[in-house]
Amino acid sequence: MADKVKVTLNDVFYPESIAVVGASSDEEKERRGWTGNLLNFGYKGRLYPVNPKGTQVLGLKIYPSVTAIEEPVDYAILNVSASLVPRLLRECAAKGVKIAHVFTAGFAETGKPEGKSLQEEVKSIVEETGIRLIGPNCLGVHSPDGGMTFANLPKRSGPAGLISQTGAGVGRIVMYGSNRGIFFGKAVSYGNAVDLDSTDYFEMLVGDDQTQFIALYLEGVKDGRRFFNLAMRCLSLGKPLVMLKAGLTEAGREAALSHTGSLAGSEQVWEAFFAQTGAIRVYSLEEIVDQLVALEYLSPRPKGRKVAIIGRGGGPGVVATEMCERVGLKVPPFSPDTRAKLERITTESGSIARNPIEVGVGRAGAQQGYMDAFRIVADSPEIDIILTHVNPEAFVIYGGSPDWIDYSIDALLDIFKTLPKPIALVLTSGETPEGREIVLKAWQRCADAGLTVFRRYESAARVISRTVNYYEFRDRFVNYKD
Amino acid sequence: MADKVKVTLNDVFYPESIAVVGASSDEEKERRGWTGNLLNFGYKGRLYPVNPKGTQVLGLKIYPSVTAIEEPVDYAILNVSASLVPRLLRECAAKGVKIAHVFTAGFAETGKPEGKSLQEEVKSIVEETGIRLIGPNCLGVHSPDGGMTFANLPKRSGPAGLISQTGAGVGRIVMYGSNRGIFFGKAVSYGNAVDLDSTDYFEMLVGDDQTQFIALYLEGVKDGRRFFNLAMRCLSLGKPLVMLKAGLTEAGREAALSHTGSLAGSEQVWEAFFAQTGAIRVYSLEEIVDQLVALEYLSPRPKGRKVAIIGRGGGPGVVATEMCERVGLKVPPFSPDTRAKLERITTESGSIARNPIEVGVGRAGAQQGYMDAFRIVADSPEIDIILTHVNPEAFVIYGGSPDWIDYSIDALLDIFKTLPKPIALVLTSGETPEGREIVLKAWQRCADAGLTVFRRYESAARVISRTVNYYEFRDRFVNYKD
Repeated sequence: MADKVKVTLNDVFYPESIAVVGASSDEEKERRGWTGNLLNFGYKGRLYPVNPKGTQVLGLKIYPSVTAIEEPVDYAILNVSASLVPRLLRECAAKGVKIAHVFTAGFAETGKPEGKSLQEEVKSIVEETGIRLIGPNCLGVHSPDGGMTFANLPKRSGPAGLISQTGAGVGRIVMYGSNRGIFFGKAVSYGNAVDLDSTDYFEMLVGDDQTQFIALYLEGVKDGRRFFNLAMRCLSLGKPLVMLKAGLTEAGREAALSHTGSLAGSEQVWEAFFAQTGAIRVYSLEEIVDQLVALEYLSPRPKGRKVAIIGRGGGPGVVATEMCERVGLKVPPFSPDTRAKLERITTESGSIARNPIEVGVGRAGAQQGYMDAFRIVADSPEIDIILTHVNPEAFVIYGGSPDWIDYSIDALLDIFKTLPKPIALVLTSGETPEGREIVLKAWQRCADAGLTVFRRYESAARVISRTVNYYEFRDRFVNYKD
Repeated sequence: MADKVKVTLNDVFYPESIAVVGASSDEEKERRGWTGNLLNFGYKGRLYPVNPKGTQVLGLKIYPSVTAIEEPVDYAILNVSASLVPRLLRECAAKGVKIAHVFTAGFAETGKPEGKSLQEEVKSIVEETGIRLIGPNCLGVHSPDGGMTFANLPKRSGPAGLISQTGAGVGRIVMYGSNRGIFFGKAVSYGNAVDLDSTDYFEMLVGDDQTQFIALYLEGVKDGRRFFNLAMRCLSLGKPLVMLKAGLTEAGREAALSHTGSLAGSEQVWEAFFAQTGAIRVYSLEEIVDQLVALEYLSPRPKGRKVAIIGRGGGPGVVATEMCERVGLKVPPFSPDTRAKLERITTESGSIARNPIEVGVGRAGAQQGYMDAFRIVADSPEIDIILTHVNPEAFVIYGGSPDWIDYSIDALLDIFKTLPKPIALVLTSGETPEGREIVLKAWQRCADAGLTVFRRYESAARVISRTVNYYEFRDRFVNYKD
């Protein structure tokens, strides 16, 4: 038994040297492999492809083994057959590698005896040698500032952090986030968690200044008490925690067990966890991104849950109202004062001065009427949040000019930062080819400008309601401590 | 007081002659107006533009008034200022027009005294003269076989029928449906329902042979008992009824009142309605389409609620499992027999022989492994429904070839009709430009082939669960009657 190597955030996310064990000597193959990925992503440290065969790949010398490398090696990526992992892991430990990321699958998650015993062997090597392990059966680290990634993901860094037991999830979340203004400074897919566990990564991100929002996809947690304490520290620090806790239905528990060999825990225990820590519970990978958008971009912070709804289309306004109410937001009637002001801007073409507000059709409605309504509502003390909807396909369906969408978006982008209330836009997803073009353009403009945008009212209402709940919970917690 | 003109489905959806009252004499304007729309959509009956000014538009003679038209007129569309509606409506009645569709807004929905009194006046004209009214404040009729539409909507007809109090909703639903294999033979947006009401249109569609699925967006219903009886007739006839009942939250009730002047009723009353009629309750416009997709394409009809999940990505499989379980579907363990068969097809690359099944990566996994898994599961007596997921962006995120998506879709389209169990595919929506291209292509191929496709697991699980509930309810009802 050796003492485990102490690892810090820097060791995981900014290693100074990386060995790629199992790099191909085939130039074309390795260009799409780990070595190529790191070079392409801008890794600035020392990089060592390792393979018993070959001499050089992508301009780098190939080493026959990790121990043949002359300089020290901080971090090794193992991309070899599962059966070779134990021997190569021992070599890494002998070389003094601090962290090995075992990409390879074929361990306990297979449910087969060979896989299980292979995982036990890996575990005992970690215990014997003290080397630290990411995985096995995982994609590992995405760290734009450290030049590390595992896929074709955006290079832009940001204040979001992600810890995910599923590799498929981490790629999607980072990718989807990048189209919504959510950028991850640090993300990790950690798979079977034979050594480093969710709680270890969680501790790193909680203590990291860059990371201001933490998202977790979890199947099992090993040290529940430590995990809970870290969640409470997030609350004190004001770092919102967004969590998808998987494996809490009977069938989900079985699935998690065979996916990563995790013990998922019980619904009751996790309900208590969410109730006590204020962690924001979500139920799908897409919702993780939606929730982060609300937390990062809904600004200024909503002071309450009273929503004004503004948009074209009577039925969609009614449906939106009910979606808000069903998730605990309020869509109150306007005060006589607000109503009188709104009535002054309504036209014969259909603007309606009630909540939900129906703005008039045509250019005047899309532009001037829209802006006026925002200004009036933003000044109304009975409203905390403004939700607006634009259907970019209206012109495809009803004729008219696609420019109307631009006018509405122009109007929104012109004024949203000057208003004293947070605004969120629901830009329904393009279902027609023409509509899709418009949506993409409008979506990108809004994301670039920092306007909060959602694709469906249902998602918007849910995540905004949870955001308000979170702030209320945090305020109570902070006041209680004082 | 005159007896009201009796109207049938044919009068509403297949009129032999239409007067467009308020047609523009400006060729360009009217090309995008009602006359142009009807001509473009292939209306085959007699068409009469009416305007005191002008002589000819789009090759048709302009009449100075409805009464100046020599031949009989079945149907009139009134697109004039609200204040002119009463006089022109009287003219229509004098001419013997059976049905007037008042497109114009500016009536009770404005909440203003002038609008309310104008609506009262229209109502009394209907009562005095017996002319029947669609609207006011609505888009009216979409009937591909009758050559009628109100927007740039698909010409293809089909077994779906739609009755919607909101115009914005009806356009979206018809348009979104057309990308998902759902085609509407008859749709109507009926607005303030001064005369013909949801129940009247409902009666027409219940009795219509073409209409096999009925979707409703309702704010208020005037004759609750008649409406209930029609819903029960739908159940007997085996025509599934999909309903978004708006206005059942406090704020939603207010919104519905000012949208179409409707009295929405209470949640308790409508809960009882859904419980007794088996009508399928949905909560958003998008869900109406999703629900129709499940009803029309999930074939053969699911015999129970036990689901097998097949796809790439462990985390997404776990999340999908829980989404199914949370809405009342079951994701049971496989029998030893099924498991043994599945184990024979698993490879080292990661296929996992449990429910949810994780298919292996690479071409073999995407193609042969995928098909084999389908065949094995379809033959397992413990499974009623197969749900599968393909992430068209996997290749964008993780590299590899976009062809893998095609291989998976090829495999699915090759076999899904030969299997004895219903299959639904979740094809996650494209969030990257490259992914979007792939999604659009795959989406279209599946829709054309009649494969049930959804965009998110959450929607798929919800509508499939409701579909199973509906069939179970209908079976109990039919058996009870016997």
